[in-house]
Formats: sequence, C-alpha cells, structure tokens
Amino acid sequence: MTEEVQALLGKEYRCLDKGFVRLIDVMGDDAAIVQAARVSYGSGTKKVHEDRGLIRYLMRHLHTTPFEMVEFKFHVKLPIFVARQWIRHRTANVNEYSGRYSEMKDEFYVPDPDQVRAQSAMNKQGRAETAFDADEAEKIRASMQQTQEMLYGQYQDLLATDLAREIARINLPVSNYTEWYWKTDLHNLFHFLRLRIDPHAQYEIRVFGEAMAEIVKAAVPLAYEAFEDYILHARRFSRLELEALRSMLTSLPTVEELESRGLSGREAREFLDKMQ
Amino acid sequence: MTEEVQALLGKEYRCLDKGFVRLIDVMGDDAAIVQAARVSYGSGTKKVHEDRGLIRYLMRHLHTTPFEMVEFKFHVKLPIFVARQWIRHRTANVNEYSGRYSEMKDEFYVPDPDQVRAQSAMNKQGRAETAFDADEAEKIRASMQQTQEMLYGQYQDLLATDLAREIARINLPVSNYTEWYWKTDLHNLFHFLRLRIDPHAQYEIRVFGEAMAEIVKAAVPLAYEAFEDYILHARRFSRLELEALRSMLTSLPTVEELESRGLSGREAREFLDKMQ
Amino acid sequence: MTEEVQALLGKEYRCLDKGFVRLIDVMGDDAAIVQAARVSYGSGTKKVHEDRGLIRYLMRHLHTTPFEMVEFKFHVKLPIFVARQWIRHRTANVNEYSGRYSEMKDEFYVPDPDQVRAQSAMNKQGRAETAFDADEAEKIRASMQQTQEMLYGQYQDLLATDLAREIARINLPVSNYTEWYWKTDLHNLFHFLRLRIDPHAQYEIRVFGEAMAEIVKAAVPLAYEAFEDYILHARRFSRLELEALRSMLTSLPTVEELESRGLSGREAREFLDKMQ
Amino acid sequence: MTEEVQALLGKEYRCLDKGFVRLIDVMGDDAAIVQAARVSYGSGTKKVHEDRGLIRYLMRHLHTTPFEMVEFKFHVKLPIFVARQWIRHRTANVNEYSGRYSEMKDEFYVPDPDQVRAQSAMNKQGRAETAFDADEAEKIRASMQQTQEMLYGQYQDLLATDLAREIARINLPVSNYTEWYWKTDLHNLFHFLRLRIDPHAQYEIRVFGEAMAEIVKAAVPLAYEAFEDYILHARRFSRLELEALRSMLTSLPTVEELESRGLSGREAREFLDKMQ
Repeated sequence: MTEEVQALLGKEYRCLDKGFVRLIDVMGDDAAIVQAARVSYGSGTKKVHEDRGLIRYLMRHLHTTPFEMVEFKFHVKLPIFVARQWIRHRTANVNEYSGRYSEMKDEFYVPDPDQVRAQSAMNKQGRAETAFDADEAEKIRASMQQTQEMLYGQYQDLLATDLAREIARINLPVSNYTEWYWKTDLHNLFHFLRLRIDPHAQYEIRVFGEAMAEIVKAAVPLAYEAFEDYILHARRFSRLELEALRSMLTSLPTVEELESRGLSGREAREFLDKMQ
Repeated sequence: MTEEVQALLGKEYRCLDKGFVRLIDVMGDDAAIVQAARVSYGSGTKKVHEDRGLIRYLMRHLHTTPFEMVEFKFHVKLPIFVARQWIRHRTANVNEYSGRYSEMKDEFYVPDPDQVRAQSAMNKQGRAETAFDADEAEKIRASMQQTQEMLYGQYQDLLATDLAREIARINLPVSNYTEWYWKTDLHNLFHFLRLRIDPHAQYEIRVFGEAMAEIVKAAVPLAYEAFEDYILHARRFSRLELEALRSMLTSLPTVEELESRGLSGREAREFLDKMQ
Repeated sequence: MTEEVQALLGKEYRCLDKGFVRLIDVMGDDAAIVQAARVSYGSGTKKVHEDRGLIRYLMRHLHTTPFEMVEFKFHVKLPIFVARQWIRHRTANVNEYSGRYSEMKDEFYVPDPDQVRAQSAMNKQGRAETAFDADEAEKIRASMQQTQEMLYGQYQDLLATDLAREIARINLPVSNYTEWYWKTDLHNLFHFLRLRIDPHAQYEIRVFGEAMAEIVKAAVPLAYEAFEDYILHARRFSRLELEALRSMLTSLPTVEELESRGLSGREAREFLDKMQ
Repeated sequence: MTEEVQALLGKEYRCLDKGFVRLIDVMGDDAAIVQAARVSYGSGTKKVHEDRGLIRYLMRHLHTTPFEMVEFKFHVKLPIFVARQWIRHRTANVNEYSGRYSEMKDEFYVPDPDQVRAQSAMNKQGRAETAFDADEAEKIRASMQQTQEMLYGQYQDLLATDLAREIARINLPVSNYTEWYWKTDLHNLFHFLRLRIDPHAQYEIRVFGEAMAEIVKAAVPLAYEAFEDYILHARRFSRLELEALRSMLTSLPTVEELESRGLSGREAREFLDKMQ
C-alpha cells in the first residue's frame, strides 16, 4: 500500500449531516489489475506496452475480471433509507449494526435547506432542480427534527418499560442512522458508483458515492481514470440512435484526426468500425 | 405443475396483522431435482432405487446443486424492518415497491398483545417467553398506532406541499409495510427457512418463514421432508461434543437396531462411522 | 406458458457436430417482467401506456431487476472447452455430468472444415476470417479424429484394468463432450448472450449462444426485441468519442425528425440530451 | 499484516507433481473478524470477553458475515480437471490463463504411483484405499506420460501450420496444467475447504485444499481453530439419529463434567439443550 493510500485509511469523509465513509482496508492497486490480466492473457498482452494502456483496454472491452482482483472495505454511517437502496447491490459483504442486539442511536437525517425540494415534474422518482423558499424549507426541517426527537423519546420510554429492543424500534423512522462495514471488489464498486453517482440516483446516496469515488480515485488512479472515460462519461447509443448518427455524419474523420483528439490508434479504428 | 400446486398460486397466506405471502410461480418439483441429479451422477445413481431415497441422499450429503433446479417466486407484503432482515439473503431476485416512485401506503405493523414482551434475559437479540400484562400491552399498542397515524398524517401533509416523495418519506417508521416480488431457488430457500424458522429469528420474520415453509412443503413434499429430517431438525455436534458423546456411550447399536428406528441401512452405517 | 413456448420444450437445437441445447423449463414471460416492474414502480408506471413501451424503457435505463423475474432452464451437450468458458458466468445453477461417477462418452468435437482457420492477425484471441484450403482442413480433421479415437481407446483400456474413473479420464481431451442442466434468470441470460453472441466470442460457444437466443426470442419476444435494440446492437461511446461526435455534427436533428426514424418522443429527447 | 503472514506471501506450496498454491495477498486477520462483529452486535458483544471466545461463538452459531470481512488471493497452478471442480465454487473472483490468447504449456499431471488405484467398491465417485502393484502403476504412468508427450507434439505441429490457438488446443487433455488467480472471502474459503479437504473429495483437489488450509491457519489462527472444532471435525446428526442418540444415553453429564472436557459453560448448556 502506498503512503498516499495508507494516509486515507480511517479518514472520515463526512456525508450528509451526520454520516460518513471511512476506508478501512484495501487489497491491491492498479498493479494488481495488471498482474491478474497478464495471467489471463499471458504473452498476448505483451503488445500493450504499459499498464495504463492495458487497464484502459480492459475497461473499454469489458474485460472485468482483473478489476475484481482489487478489494475495498469501508465503514459507513448512513440513514436507513439510504442503506435500503445500497443493499440492493448484492455482490458485497456486509456487517450492519443491529437494532435487535443494541440500542439505536439518537441520530437522524435532516436534509439541508437546499435539498428541501418539490417533486420533479420530469422524473417520477426524483426531486426538482430548485429548493423550496428558505422559510418553507426551514419550517419543514424544524418539523422533521421535532418528530425525530419525539420518536426517539418514545423509543427510550419503551426501552424503559423493558420492552424488547427488537419491538421497541419499530416506529423509528428510516431517517435514523445506522452503520455498517461494507466490502466489495473494484468491478462491483465501479458498478455501484456508475449507478449511484448518476444524477438519477437519490441525492442522499449520491453523496456517499461521490465520497467513495474520491477514495477509489486515490487508491487506483489509472483504473478510475479509465472508468471515467469509458463508463461514467460514456454513453450508449441504441440501434436506432446509431442509424440516426450515421445518417447525420456526412463524412468520417481519419484515424489521424481522431488521434489528435486523444484517442489511441486502436481506439480510433474501433470508433470508425462502430460508425460504419 | 400438479393441480394441488396450481391451487396454491395466488393464495394469500396472511402474516402478521396486515402482511401476506403469495406464491406467484414455481419452476420444477421433486421430479426436477431427481432429473438434475441423474444428469450429474449418471448411471452412478441407478442404485438408489427411487426418487425419495435419492432426494434424501442428496440432502444428507449436501449435494445441493440439484435443489437449485427448482425456483419459487413469491409476492410478499411485509414491514420494512422485516424486509431489512430478509434482504440479507443475497442469492435472490427482488422487485420492491419504491417510495421514490409511489406514495407509501397507510399500513403499519402493530404487534399482537401476546408479542408485546420484555427483552430476553438469556438472549441479547430476542424477546422474553411471556408477554406483558394485557393492560400494559394494550397501552403500548395504542400508543404505537397513534404514533403511526400521526406520522402518516405528517407524510400526507408534506406531500401536499409538493415536497418530493423521496424526501417526504424519511420519517416514516420501519413498521410501515412495503411489498416485493422475491424469487429464489430451492437450495437458497431452504437456507432462508433454516435461519428464519429458527426460534432465534425475530418472531415477525418467522411468521413469513412458516407460511413459505407450508407452501414449499406442498410443492416439493419429498425435498421438504428431507430438509426437515436432515437439516431443520438435525443438530451439529462439535469436535469436543463428539468426544463427549463417544465417551458417554458404553456400546453402539447394531445396524439392525438402527434400521428398526427408521434409518436406512446406509444411514445406519454412516451413523456408526460418525460415532467411532 | 403459451402453446408456442410449450412446443419448444425439449426440442433439440443442434449445435456443432454432436452438441445441442434444449429448453427444459421456463418461468414467466414478457407479462411477468411487466408485473414485477409495476410492483416496483407502482402508480409511477401508469404513464407508460403499454407493456412493450415499459419493457423498452426498463431495458434502456438498465432497470434490470424485473428481467430477473423470468427464469430459463436448459439442457446442454457441449465440448469441455466450451463448458470452461460458459461456467465463468457465475450467476447460474448447474448440474454437470460427472466423470467421477460415470464413464465419459465416446463423443468428441471435430471442427467443420470451414472452421479450420489460421490464427487471426488482428485478434490475439481469435481465428482468421477464412478457412484453410479444403485438403489441409480435411487432413487436420482426420488427424484430430484419429487422436480422439486413440484417446478413448486408452481410456477404455484403463477402465478395463479397473483403474478409478476419476484417474482414468485425465488424458481425455477438452474436445470431449459433457452435458449439463443450466438455469439462470433472463437478466443474466441477456448478459451471457451479449458476450457470447459477440463476434469476439469463440465460434464454438457462439453457436450455443445463437441457439439460445432463438429460444429466448420465442419465449419473451418483447424483451428480446428491446435487448437487441438497446444492448446487442447498441454501441457505447467513450468520453473522447462523444466529444469527437459532437464536434463532427454541425447541427442536431429535431425531435420530429428523430421520431420519423422510429425513436419514441422520450428517446428522441434522451438522444438530444446525450449529444449536448 | 504480521511478519509471519508477510513471510508467506509468494511462497510456493508444491501441490501434485507440477502444481502449486501461492498466497498473493490477504486483507484482514482475526482482529478484522472481531472488528466487524462488534459493529454488527454492538454492545451486545461486550460480554464475550475476548476475541477467541467471540470468534468461536460466531462460528458455532453460523454468524458467517464477519468471516466475509477477510479476503484471500491465491495464485494456483493446477490441472484442468481440478480447475473444473474448483470453479464450481461461484462466490470467488478468477483470472485464468487463456488458451485462446496464449500457448498452453508443456506440463501435464501424472499421478504418483501410490495414487494409481482401482475404482472404490464402496464409493461410486472415488478410488480404492490401496494402490495398484508397483509394476502395473509404473506401466500406467509411463503410458500416460507418453500420451501427453504425443498430444503436446501434435499441438505444436498444429500451431506450426498457423492453426488458430483456440482450435489447436482442443485435443489437449484435462491433465494439462493451467494457472489462475483466485480470490475469495474467508467464509467462502472455509466452505471450499470443508468440501475439498473432505475424504470424499478427489485426492488431486484435496492436496490443494490442504495447502491452502495451512496458509489460512497461519493467517487467521483463531478462526481456523474454530473452523476445525465447529465445522471440519463436527458432525451433523439427523432427526432420527438424534432420537437414537437420546435413547442410547441413560443419563446426561453435568455442565461441570462437560466443562472438564474443554467445553465452555455456554457450550455445555447448548449441548444439554440439544440432547433433550
């Protein structure tokens, strides 16, 4: 582990009002991806001269298994409703704080004023681009917080009667914070990030995704760069969209023109293949 | 699909106060397990004369893959805190109702009076054997229900301001009911049942486990019987426990004595092997 | 199950010289995808007026979980080297014929003359576009077959000495045919097809992929059509490729123009978003 | 990573005649298991006074998720027929040497003379307890080796005609060595070891299992000890076997007697519960 990565271990990346992401451990780095790929592809990979080129080739062609050779473990504190979205990523290991064994803590998510927004008119699942006016937002926030305090008070009262923890907690809201250790490989982590950094993801999980992206970028800079170029900032075009594109282009650029834009020679030829 | 199983399709098994399990579809039956096993083991399985014997042999020796050839799909309505335990079983397919797309419904779990119980003295994660007295239980139930009504009222008020659904729902409690389609194979379903029918599982998920067990038993009676005999009602003994057992037994029974208790000849020999 | 699908059950699709794919069972159809999606997205999906539109929307936006609600089970006979590529798809259930329990059969793959080809000059992992000349190909085929006969003869000789099957088989070649039951959900099956129908896949597995694609198309026609339009015949463009495309297009079409090409209004707007 | 574990990195554990297992990397140790468990069970675990007790408790009660927080990566060289058994463990990451990209190497497994054994009379899938006589074994070995040389010669001849590697290799036998990186978590690794160290596993994979067990034992000694006591050397008794056991025991030991055998007080009570 490089000193830069070691310096990240345990560091709290604050997320939302009371949450965080902390990198607990990481196995492997960019070199581990290359090492695994060279086992798979043997002498066939000698032609790709250097690590960066190989990693970019792997990412571009969805040769995903070498990325599985890197593993990340995080400690996360997050609201229950975020945990419920997160846990849908099944290829991961999880140890979550248990409300059956232990008392839930007095910590609840309240959105920042600028996140108190109307239902999106465009997007059945999202919120609008702009926030409520400041007074209205503050009123909603205050009311949310008051409710949370009341619910935690009731929870404490129930525990005081010696009611079993596993029952006493049933009226705690999904804004209550929980914690977990979450461990996954880099391929699945990229898949998580692609879906959760996306503007269509709920803001509250996106914040965690962005913090993790920052960590991942520091730990595996070449792989992260390739992820950005070929996945995150790439777009897929359907059969009909491709037809439209082809008909719109009166002429195709040369390999040289494409290279002058930063594409490798091989990428340039792949691009021209796609356009024909 | 036999007529008996077809009759189960869609039938609501009520669970808790407002929940249910419904069998939506099933692929395969006891015969499908046998069919798959015979592909794997080829002529080697001819000696196990009939299906029941083969299924019991597979279960006893943890030859689990033939059980994966049967698939169940359920529609379940369940409180969020039960869903949070359930989802930890990762090898399954899930489509859950979304509080981002749609309004959460006005349905919340309130425990029956006899489930309003103290924290277990023995079990850090469980509840006591006996309920609170009736008055106290009723008081708690009434207070829970009142809180749920209030929370749903607040939720409606927030929606009325046009606050985005994905934010408005954050103070809804984990007693709120959700729904999902849940699909898994029989091997993983047995694993689920073993853990969730167990007395250490929280009562509220156990109820769902028991309803599903009833359905599974009707759909694959031979496999379910083997599951009960070799997994559910079996017990594992550690190295030290085995030593203790061996030293406590002054003599071992004969194969014939064991057969008279219902063990097959092969099982009797396996038993004697384990005791030596 | 519709009559058309029922008619497919058990039907042998011949693959390579001695292999096959047979559909054993299927759970669900296009309607099951829609049913699951409507649980997830609730009233939010009412606006997508009909099933086809909803399925296409799900596919386009990588809402993959509803496709997991359909399950396929196949019986496949395939050479061992194909099985070794196939098994890398982990999210599936498998029961394979066992060379420990049973004798391997006297069936080996010999490539057709037109598949006897040189190493590709372009592709480190593939074969050239054109076959060896007929005589040379036939000579290679004859020699391969002779070797296979000799190896099976040696295997039989070793079995005749009563050598354990699990040892006797170690010099059987990877061209030997094996069999398995293979079961997976539609989402993972599409992923399999995308990788294995692809021209970069080895010809011998592609043949199986194509046979399965034909079956899948018959069983879930709407989902298969969406898969073709948005995944199989779609292409991903990297960040740099997008920049190149944008700079090459002097003007963008209107929504109306795109609609006249077959895109829905929503797709047309999504296209324009991607191009800006 | 402790110095002892660091000293293991890269060390070749020879397996069979030409294979090996090498530990490439490990994430976490016994302390990482405890750390994860304490997040899950919170203050509820304070009573289990020390790490060893907690780890044993987790293992005994199948609280498997904390063991998933430790990850191992191995480099393995193994015959193809062993790889085919191994790959059935799906919850793992794999990068295998590819016979499409690269030339297969001239290395083949030949069993040691004492492993040249007859088919087991008892076990449809196994070999007998004793070897063939020395002359016969040597004759078989010599013939196997001769065949392997001939096959590799033919492979080289085909490559010399420029036949595509992916076709030329189809008559290479499953005794040919391949290589891979294989990475999995400790829970799944224990599952692998339980099945593959078992006497019913084929000898050739057992050898690899035993080498890995040695590595795991050095890396997580407390977890490995618990695995041996509660899983590997434990035995499961069916419902009928339990009835037989109970009827055979005229009296049960006291907690004190059990403690004198090494059971903890809690284990002693658990044992008595199982026997009643």
